[in-house]
Amino acid sequence: MEQVAVIGAGSWGTALAMVLANNQHNVNVWSHREDQVNEINHHHTNSKYLPDVKLPSNLVANADIQEAVENAKAILLVVPTKAIREVCRKLRPFINTNQTLIHASKGIEPETHKRISEMIEDELGEGVHDQLVVLSGPSHAEEVALKQPTTVTVSSYHLKSAEIAQDLFMNEHFRVYTNEDVVGVEIGGALKNIIALGAGISDGLGYGDNAKAALITRGLAEIARLGTQLNANPLTFAGLTGVGDLIVTCTSQHSRNWRAGNMLGRGYVLQDVLDQMGMVVEGVRTTKAAYQLSQKLNIPMPITEGLYELLFDEKDPKHVVDDLMNRGKTKELEDLSSFL
Amino acid sequence: MEQVAVIGAGSWGTALAMVLANNQHNVNVWSHREDQVNEINHHHTNSKYLPDVKLPSNLVANADIQEAVENAKAILLVVPTKAIREVCRKLRPFINTNQTLIHASKGIEPETHKRISEMIEDELGEGVHDQLVVLSGPSHAEEVALKQPTTVTVSSYHLKSAEIAQDLFMNEHFRVYTNEDVVGVEIGGALKNIIALGAGISDGLGYGDNAKAALITRGLAEIARLGTQLNANPLTFAGLTGVGDLIVTCTSQHSRNWRAGNMLGRGYVLQDVLDQMGMVVEGVRTTKAAYQLSQKLNIPMPITEGLYELLFDEKDPKHVVDDLMNRGKTKELEDLSSFL
Repeated sequence: MEQVAVIGAGSWGTALAMVLANNQHNVNVWSHREDQVNEINHHHTNSKYLPDVKLPSNLVANADIQEAVENAKAILLVVPTKAIREVCRKLRPFINTNQTLIHASKGIEPETHKRISEMIEDELGEGVHDQLVVLSGPSHAEEVALKQPTTVTVSSYHLKSAEIAQDLFMNEHFRVYTNEDVVGVEIGGALKNIIALGAGISDGLGYGDNAKAALITRGLAEIARLGTQLNANPLTFAGLTGVGDLIVTCTSQHSRNWRAGNMLGRGYVLQDVLDQMGMVVEGVRTTKAAYQLSQKLNIPMPITEGLYELLFDEKDPKHVVDDLMNRGKTKELEDLSSFL
Repeated sequence: MEQVAVIGAGSWGTALAMVLANNQHNVNVWSHREDQVNEINHHHTNSKYLPDVKLPSNLVANADIQEAVENAKAILLVVPTKAIREVCRKLRPFINTNQTLIHASKGIEPETHKRISEMIEDELGEGVHDQLVVLSGPSHAEEVALKQPTTVTVSSYHLKSAEIAQDLFMNEHFRVYTNEDVVGVEIGGALKNIIALGAGISDGLGYGDNAKAALITRGLAEIARLGTQLNANPLTFAGLTGVGDLIVTCTSQHSRNWRAGNMLGRGYVLQDVLDQMGMVVEGVRTTKAAYQLSQKLNIPMPITEGLYELLFDEKDPKHVVDDLMNRGKTKELEDLSSFL
């Protein structure tokens, strides 16, 4: 039984907090919103983010970040990519070298092209390098909250940290694998949101499962191509945080990125989509960051490039898909060789 | 404009015949059923297998196999796995060394554990080795018939033969990649039906997208593990005929194997499922063949083994899934290393 702090009370943070609480850990969830803290503590619900779910009594909330992380053996960070730096600056005075720092956010920072763990190290100092763990994999929060079978990967440069995270989370419904390829896990988790936008666009255009499977498969190849250039282990892209997360994000209408893509495919322009969603759509920021990175490193990423043109140059969605279908004749394995 | 024979008038044979006819080739479809031949020739429909689709006038049918293949530059074989040998014996007198022999069937023969192209070579002679091509990939027949965007792979030991097939089929809706790894393409196409049964079972049990994505990902790893032992190129499993076809078969309710699995998950026993389906469920035969092969070669294939026990030893579906979730703690990349 450990003390664990969860920073961020969105749907994923709350679902992961429930896993920890169900494993008998004492969980303290930080939210900057007083009303949410009160709801969690007095009604044991978080109705905006996980409707119809009752939270366990050993899951409490706190609006004071210092109190939330007090005595925590591990801190789980689950906030949108663009809030990572600010939240880390709030945390900085209260962390210590014995804590395991786990994050479960997905994205790449535009302009700097940094991964989440690099942003965290920037803010908390290089001293935390071996304490950092990323948790990722095919996991809708709603299903995790309902104890549906789920598998995830925890990855750290320092295997011992990943094993601590594995021990905290693993139970009969929630299977946790360890992995030492932080770069591959973070790149896969971030870039799948680009392909999910594309899958939504394809569905929004009225195309079928064949087109979507092609997009996911070719998307995986271009994610692996970028990832291996950044020193990821190509095998990681064949695992839960690569192909597994791609599948769940691209084939489920739960996915925010899929839904945003679907609206784009039906003819809405980006600003209208963002206005209507009223939530963070990580794939939009990530498309920009990945496109910039592919240009800088000179890596062919035709799907990312097509989506970039659609999102930021208002290229017609149908033209994007048609262009992808009508490139020259290709030998499949030459295209996939970035896996090795 | 070429003369092409299509042997087999099921949904996939008919859809591929339509692609060829739309590319201006003269297509002669062989069926042993006179009523089907008459329907195709007089009504330009094949209502049992592709309802609501009008066939082009340069697609004709013939009940005489000799007439069907006469002057054919290429012969496309699309029959259920268990009919392959018999149909090849019928074809044998009429083929010549200048023809490209393409097949689009998916399975492994129980007991012999042979792939489709090995069965064809057994029946037509080793002389056809370089003429053989396998066509595979994520492709529901219904979508191909409607000219929805689709990608497939054509694979041959002899690149030139694959390129002939590529030229015959490729058009703006139907993108064709070449590949020289016949073993990988055939193993991926066959074994995905096992995982589709598993995906149907998971859905039938009421489990969610997280469980299904885990099953597909871990299934891909065990397919690759078997395939590389059989000298497949591991990269092929990351491509259209591996992960691509797995995705389309496991996430779509069009798939026969998924539907059979779904009934099993809801508590039906195998014989009832087969009786109710009234169609070939390749995954059942393939599970037996792959299980035998994994035992013979001593390759761990936990999903295949679990399904074998469920299908043939009446093990409870829920126990099969629970056992898969509750194996010991695992390092992900050790499990995936068969990809290299």
